[in-house]
Amino acid sequence: MQALRVEKNKATVRDVEMPERGPEAIVRVLLSGICNTDIEITRGYAGFTGTIGHEFVGIVEDAPEGKLVGQRVVGEINAGCGECELCRTGDPRHCPKRTVLGIVGRDGAHAEFLRLPLMNLLPVPERIADEHAVFTEPLAAACGIMERTPITTDKNVAVIGDGKLGLLCAQALALTGAPVLLIGKHPENLRIAERRGIETATAKNAVGRKREFDVVVEASGSASAFNTAVSLLRPRGVLVLKSTFHGTTEINAATIVVDEISIVGSRCGRLAPALDLLKKGAIDVDSLISEEYPLRDGAMALERAARKGILKVFLRP
Amino acid sequence: MQALRVEKNKATVRDVEMPERGPEAIVRVLLSGICNTDIEITRGYAGFTGTIGHEFVGIVEDAPEGKLVGQRVVGEINAGCGECELCRTGDPRHCPKRTVLGIVGRDGAHAEFLRLPLMNLLPVPERIADEHAVFTEPLAAACGIMERTPITTDKNVAVIGDGKLGLLCAQALALTGAPVLLIGKHPENLRIAERRGIETATAKNAVGRKREFDVVVEASGSASAFNTAVSLLRPRGVLVLKSTFHGTTEINAATIVVDEISIVGSRCGRLAPALDLLKKGAIDVDSLISEEYPLRDGAMALERAARKGILKVFLRP
Repeated sequence: MQALRVEKNKATVRDVEMPERGPEAIVRVLLSGICNTDIEITRGYAGFTGTIGHEFVGIVEDAPEGKLVGQRVVGEINAGCGECELCRTGDPRHCPKRTVLGIVGRDGAHAEFLRLPLMNLLPVPERIADEHAVFTEPLAAACGIMERTPITTDKNVAVIGDGKLGLLCAQALALTGAPVLLIGKHPENLRIAERRGIETATAKNAVGRKREFDVVVEASGSASAFNTAVSLLRPRGVLVLKSTFHGTTEINAATIVVDEISIVGSRCGRLAPALDLLKKGAIDVDSLISEEYPLRDGAMALERAARKGILKVFLRP
Repeated sequence: MQALRVEKNKATVRDVEMPERGPEAIVRVLLSGICNTDIEITRGYAGFTGTIGHEFVGIVEDAPEGKLVGQRVVGEINAGCGECELCRTGDPRHCPKRTVLGIVGRDGAHAEFLRLPLMNLLPVPERIADEHAVFTEPLAAACGIMERTPITTDKNVAVIGDGKLGLLCAQALALTGAPVLLIGKHPENLRIAERRGIETATAKNAVGRKREFDVVVEASGSASAFNTAVSLLRPRGVLVLKSTFHGTTEINAATIVVDEISIVGSRCGRLAPALDLLKKGAIDVDSLISEEYPLRDGAMALERAARKGILKVFLRP
């Protein structure tokens, strides 16, 4: 089968072996989405070699005891050991022995078929189109912010980054009723948020709002956004880091101590609530779809997805 | 009067004008303590010019309406505007217009006399010796950790740094009943914690305890301790930053996102609970006293305080 592989920091579509039938489910991928993490992996992030991709919707082709076979599913990307305390309580996201679809020790979703434990799969309600269902994983990640810091209506929230992740975060946060400001640099992307009633600003215009925000979400993937984010926070404010990227960031630790700021990392969320939001049509994902390519053009699609202003790029096997 | 002044990154004891009588209280300093922040100010931290020092015990010489005159006091170092929302709720610590004793816009405590608003002063119970009362401010800062992140008996806590701040933090945290490990490099300092039943380790020995801790407190004032601290944290753990120092720290933001770590700045605490702990004799501060000098030898005392392994150095006017 075809798969988009990263080997030695180079992405190419190659013919690889089909995943073998075994204790895990086999899913035929209908559609996959390119995440910035995929692009960062080609730059060395996570040191991963193999098939990339972790946003998908597909049909279960094979599974233990025939469960879910024939059903359309999305999947939790962290596959735990099943034995540690975290896994036993149903949350493999921080299992120390976990593999992660297309990121750590497990081939991913930019392929004709993928493998995941049966328990990682969630059936997709019929009324959700493939093009929406594929947003379940990144939308869950956006909703995961609320697992890490409480967002209440009295909190002033800013999101930095008008890419696909920032637009999902801003929309998910706005559903709490808290006032949200999206800071970005692409007028056409900012308009997507504005149509949902979200206030927007350019970084230049946001400068005048220093020390106004209780929570700032960094979703731009740019190391330089860190200091902007800190400057927008009021004392004892919370900076949520959403983007994973390769490399280091220089911080002024004294500012964090003096203003008693909290910096909170946020990665994966829960799929079920995200799927529910998509079913309700509560999030505009249609406007986030930029381009679609056949899987065989995966390497080129990755390059397209890395361009400024481009939002979600799909691959169709 | 004599005062230890920092001007152009150089500390010298000079003769300066006495503080004038006015709307604030005037305190005759009995004893002041040298904090690492004083040393960092001589290296450019906070860009402060003036009399340094913010840990003191003294006698009120003059005050509006004669209040507290003749009483022995310690003082909250943040002097707010008195008008903003924070000040009105009795917490000037983050007032945007605040001055800070010996750190921001206000001459400090390494002097014969200092000035502070009357409301910043707390009478010291008779049974607390001067040499203990002078620890009120740094002990309050140690207790301030609990304002920033909950410490419960089921939390595994590590403190990095066996200097005076680390030893106060470890003791204050241990009073919660949570297991505390103090990581340091000076056997004689580690023994102070051991005598209070606190487990200790060298950094080398702590390496084997990666990902074991729910809360790690960085109190060593060393930028390189940051990565050690992160490595000791379990996923979703909390790193508390206590030290203010001049310069920047390089962090790997992806680790913070992937392990969903929180980094929490902590600065000043409340004086009253700290004074209460000192009254109860709940904290061993005697062992933290290294040396005492007359105020006129302040510049030399600062150099002594900066030496490795030296704990609290007092100045007596």
